[in-house]
Amino acid sequence: MSILVVGSVALDSIKTPYSRCEEVLGGSATFFSLSARLFSQVNLVAVIGRDFPAKYLKLFKDKGINIKGLEIAEGETFRWEGEYEWDFNSAKTLATHLNVFSSFNPKIPAEYKHSKYVFLANIDPEIQERVLRQVINPKLVACDTMNHWIDSKKKQLTKFLKKVDILFLNDGEARQLSEENNLLKAAKAIFKFGPKRIIIKKGEHGAMLFSKNSVFCVPAFLLEEVYDPTGAGDTFAGGVMGYLAKQDNLSESALRRALVNGNIMATFAVEDFGPWRLVSLTKPEVEKRLKEFKRLTCF
Amino acid sequence: MSILVVGSVALDSIKTPYSRCEEVLGGSATFFSLSARLFSQVNLVAVIGRDFPAKYLKLFKDKGINIKGLEIAEGETFRWEGEYEWDFNSAKTLATHLNVFSSFNPKIPAEYKHSKYVFLANIDPEIQERVLRQVINPKLVACDTMNHWIDSKKKQLTKFLKKVDILFLNDGEARQLSEENNLLKAAKAIFKFGPKRIIIKKGEHGAMLFSKNSVFCVPAFLLEEVYDPTGAGDTFAGGVMGYLAKQDNLSESALRRALVNGNIMATFAVEDFGPWRLVSLTKPEVEKRLKEFKRLTCF
Repeated sequence: MSILVVGSVALDSIKTPYSRCEEVLGGSATFFSLSARLFSQVNLVAVIGRDFPAKYLKLFKDKGINIKGLEIAEGETFRWEGEYEWDFNSAKTLATHLNVFSSFNPKIPAEYKHSKYVFLANIDPEIQERVLRQVINPKLVACDTMNHWIDSKKKQLTKFLKKVDILFLNDGEARQLSEENNLLKAAKAIFKFGPKRIIIKKGEHGAMLFSKNSVFCVPAFLLEEVYDPTGAGDTFAGGVMGYLAKQDNLSESALRRALVNGNIMATFAVEDFGPWRLVSLTKPEVEKRLKEFKRLTCF
Repeated sequence: MSILVVGSVALDSIKTPYSRCEEVLGGSATFFSLSARLFSQVNLVAVIGRDFPAKYLKLFKDKGINIKGLEIAEGETFRWEGEYEWDFNSAKTLATHLNVFSSFNPKIPAEYKHSKYVFLANIDPEIQERVLRQVINPKLVACDTMNHWIDSKKKQLTKFLKKVDILFLNDGEARQLSEENNLLKAAKAIFKFGPKRIIIKKGEHGAMLFSKNSVFCVPAFLLEEVYDPTGAGDTFAGGVMGYLAKQDNLSESALRRALVNGNIMATFAVEDFGPWRLVSLTKPEVEKRLKEFKRLTCF
């Protein structure tokens, strides 16, 4: 099954204690697509400026990602500058230049409209809603969000959540959205807004899948070297959605395996700067790490 | 197999956002014993003052804990006052009155000297060493430590670690002891000090078992209500050591199951103030939660 992803394609400048890079390919839709493409066909919708490097367009095509929905607008591409210190769990944003992304009004190409699996990355919830209206009879709708939208558009976000099957968010955002400190209570409160399932990302501590009657916890796969955590959350979501779309199965056990796959995908994202490890990544490498992870967690 | 535990028995005064309690039974050896006693015979060594409530002595006896090694000294019992805010991961110490604990010089009773399983709770590493010299041919020696000893007696601690089979410590302490931020690197550095295995406790994020050639991660069991995290780490260690002593098996798979048992025991410790939930706890309740945990983590 093919997946529609709507989000950002950006040029990131990142500083970590190890190194720095300038204007490397980034954005939520980029990381999601590079991850999900190892499982399923990905239809990408985003906006870039005239300055977007041709080599990155070629990269998407080479990786089999459908970019018919990648709009090229007058102006400059979205740019983000961030810094990580030794604690890789949180980025410090140094600058955000939305550029063409500030007037992003996604148009879903005709050939994408029947996508059965839809992922609305971290964008304005009103735009997420507008996108969803253009999709015909999706089987699974998932979205991500962030503190900025919880702060500024909570009403629109919670209204939109009624239409969502899976909400992805991190632990801090779950606490903020629910106004509950305890994550079990937070999930209960968020269920009242309407999503059928909630996936809470906990960075180096793994992830949790909340269904109405069960909770599944997956511990993180420890890496000795973390070079750049940018995009790990979207890579995780790409693995979850990619696996589900490939299996075309929404049972609890399929969802749990999807979470494990997302977890493994995220470990590759952080192994190199920007998206480069995902670009070179092959399915046998993913399978190998999945096996290691199973050994790591069985008792 | 019986377990020898050497540590503190204290009177704790604890404040949390929910409530407060004064002079409740506490101390590392208390939580460890109340946990391990559900699996194996526990031989306790600690020191208390003349003011120690008789009802607590009776409690130890009622729970089948051997207190022949519980020395009653002239003076007052060790007292600790602490506070937790909404983030239950770290306690703020308001006051520590070591009292009789400041001159604690553990004497191991003759009938304890052949204990095969030994747990040296978080006390001065020089005392841990002195205790170990009194034990005849133990099968497994485990110890805990804390930031205070890493700061003030690192040399003595690392010397003692050569004699240790399992070192228990939390993630912050592992980073401090190894001077490495990444936990995999931290474990590698700590192995050089000599322990055969390292168990890193991560509070609400679970625990990790490092062996020379493998890592096992266990996620935490989420609770909706955490009332008081005091003693959770010692309760965890009590579950791990209790399980190992009961099985009398030190294979990797036994160690993993021990970690899961410790993890489950810790969830009970935090469900009520002080040690009260552990006092009322029964083996069938533990078995039931273990089953729930397996459902929670299987994929």
